[in-house]
Amino acid sequence: MAIEVDYRFPPDVNAEKQAKVIAIGQTVGTWDARFAHREASLTSHLGEVVSVVKQPDNYSIATVRFPLSNVENDVSSLLTMIFGKYSMAGAAKVVALRLPENYGLRPKYGISGIRELLNVRTRPLIMAIFKPALGLSAADHAAILKEVAFAGLDIIKDDEILGNLASAPTLERLKACRKVLDIVKQQTGNTVLYAVNVTGNAAQLLQRARDLVSNGANALLLNVFSYGFSVLEALAVDPEVNVPIFTHPAGAGALSAAPDYGFDYSVSLGTLMTYAGADAVLYPAHYGNLPFDANTEAQIRDILRARNVMPVPSAGIHPGVVSKAVSDYGQDVVLNAGTGIMDHPDGAGSGVKAFFEALECVNKGESLNLDSLPDGALKSAIQKWGVWSHK
Amino acid sequence: MAIEVDYRFPPDVNAEKQAKVIAIGQTVGTWDARFAHREASLTSHLGEVVSVVKQPDNYSIATVRFPLSNVENDVSSLLTMIFGKYSMAGAAKVVALRLPENYGLRPKYGISGIRELLNVRTRPLIMAIFKPALGLSAADHAAILKEVAFAGLDIIKDDEILGNLASAPTLERLKACRKVLDIVKQQTGNTVLYAVNVTGNAAQLLQRARDLVSNGANALLLNVFSYGFSVLEALAVDPEVNVPIFTHPAGAGALSAAPDYGFDYSVSLGTLMTYAGADAVLYPAHYGNLPFDANTEAQIRDILRARNVMPVPSAGIHPGVVSKAVSDYGQDVVLNAGTGIMDHPDGAGSGVKAFFEALECVNKGESLNLDSLPDGALKSAIQKWGVWSHK
Repeated sequence: MAIEVDYRFPPDVNAEKQAKVIAIGQTVGTWDARFAHREASLTSHLGEVVSVVKQPDNYSIATVRFPLSNVENDVSSLLTMIFGKYSMAGAAKVVALRLPENYGLRPKYGISGIRELLNVRTRPLIMAIFKPALGLSAADHAAILKEVAFAGLDIIKDDEILGNLASAPTLERLKACRKVLDIVKQQTGNTVLYAVNVTGNAAQLLQRARDLVSNGANALLLNVFSYGFSVLEALAVDPEVNVPIFTHPAGAGALSAAPDYGFDYSVSLGTLMTYAGADAVLYPAHYGNLPFDANTEAQIRDILRARNVMPVPSAGIHPGVVSKAVSDYGQDVVLNAGTGIMDHPDGAGSGVKAFFEALECVNKGESLNLDSLPDGALKSAIQKWGVWSHK
Repeated sequence: MAIEVDYRFPPDVNAEKQAKVIAIGQTVGTWDARFAHREASLTSHLGEVVSVVKQPDNYSIATVRFPLSNVENDVSSLLTMIFGKYSMAGAAKVVALRLPENYGLRPKYGISGIRELLNVRTRPLIMAIFKPALGLSAADHAAILKEVAFAGLDIIKDDEILGNLASAPTLERLKACRKVLDIVKQQTGNTVLYAVNVTGNAAQLLQRARDLVSNGANALLLNVFSYGFSVLEALAVDPEVNVPIFTHPAGAGALSAAPDYGFDYSVSLGTLMTYAGADAVLYPAHYGNLPFDANTEAQIRDILRARNVMPVPSAGIHPGVVSKAVSDYGQDVVLNAGTGIMDHPDGAGSGVKAFFEALECVNKGESLNLDSLPDGALKSAIQKWGVWSHK
């Protein structure tokens, strides 16, 4: 199987012509008699227009097939080929990308591996984000972690904004938090993953990731769009980085939010992540606080799961959306909340408890409505954030 | 000085509100009494809305100031802060970015360093691209290089599409071409730079760059948007990578082509490149074959030069545009042609000669019009490609 890309063009674009421009211009280009002796080689690298189909909205979708021999079995060289120079040629959006199953990487851990690390086999996993995002000390982070970890949290991550800052250097945060993780393990038997945000120039970042892991980091967080898919790929194949990699969507909107340019979110946050070695992928939930389409979210979920990558719908998640999330996702999902845990009226520990109470309600088929809830963490959460309902 | 970012919002967006969302949401977020003991630290990391100004077209430009202490003096952490999660929040475009002069990196070579390497002090530099882009052998590349280098070419680069492929592995291309560069140096005294396309996952790429340089590469080409700014930064500070880095704009359109989303091209191809260590930056010329705005091109030129980075207007450059290019750029510019050199009717060597003849004409104040030209390389080029004229 070759590489197939669907490009969507607005009604005023000559899609047939542009598809040919892509098939030729994004591969070999043209040649003349001087290269007759290389005819076979040149031809073998040419792209090919598979189809151009007019849509009901008068947009056109052109499918172009590219030879596998043009790229390096990775995401970065693929990006240069499928939407490199051509990205500057006018209105066109990459709406789908189909790769051979054995292309690129697969997650080292993914859904099954993360469940195994946590020894939680069936229920949705509950994840928190350290808040406030900046300005806390390493000791502050440890204190927050203690509260949420003893409340039963599965995973915590740095805010994506928090890098290696003077106020709380990454290694210090890890060391302070690692102690808490060890105490929790001793006292409860529970493993909690802490996805540490790994930053720096590519060389520093790769070394920092190894240093973090050798100092006890049991998960990493990477802002893929800020650092590059090539960095994710390098982390994913590094034998010393033997922990799950959580990817954050920061910056994805710059590539994907425009209707007629860039990459569809299902490609940027779905397909590309699954071939670049991500274990768990964060992306906006359509019932959260970012404008996100329900169909796109469902597409991303399915694309991730097809390669055993854990979906992590995020942004505006609180206990009141658990019923909706479970109906959309079933069990193989991470429910990831920042303020939806940290800003619980009774503290972050109650924020975690509220999620578990919500899961219990949903499993029993009970409603999350305020009137029927007993006093406790969940009721306080619903009082603050409400229950998600179809609008 | 802090970091200042100008965000442009369409008329239907509440720009005041969104500017506050950015200043708070892209920094600390909110906090409550529990963090009163950290008030000073938290406050020191908050962003601040400087101004929100309605434009004549009813768009608004909001300027937000961010503390330097939030980021790691690099481009990647800066991207996460200024347009990370917020990039997914709706229509908004980053149209300008102002950084302290000592932020980030500067080019190791840049305009002055590249001129010194080539020992060409005043005229525009002439650069070619190997074509066809894929499917040639290393020996084919060497044969092409011989032709253009003996014709006086200053710089050549791989096509950005050409990575480390089985048909012509990168190191083999370099070795075959390096022999030619040595012969040219011996026989003519001229240095020719060959910007080798460096690819692979971030770890492989950094090692490959070192290997290439230790095998005689005297310049590198990087597809920054495919591999990541963190990779450019790592290359730029690597003591073993002591050659100029040329950056290619492949993929920039996915970030910058949409009118109301992403980053203005002057930011993606201008500002960010100059703080990430690029020595020479390729970008579309407005008189080339990609749709590009003349003002944007002029902005990029000025932003690059302000930090000694060499501007390389590209895509559709041929001898007939030399007059226009010199009037736009003067002498500190690289004129970079692919087919505009390689597809010259009398061969690639004549393509190079045509550029030098065009420069001579322009310097003498002579026109490039067909009627007034003597027979020769330039005349053949103008017959094929015409002369650029204001339309």
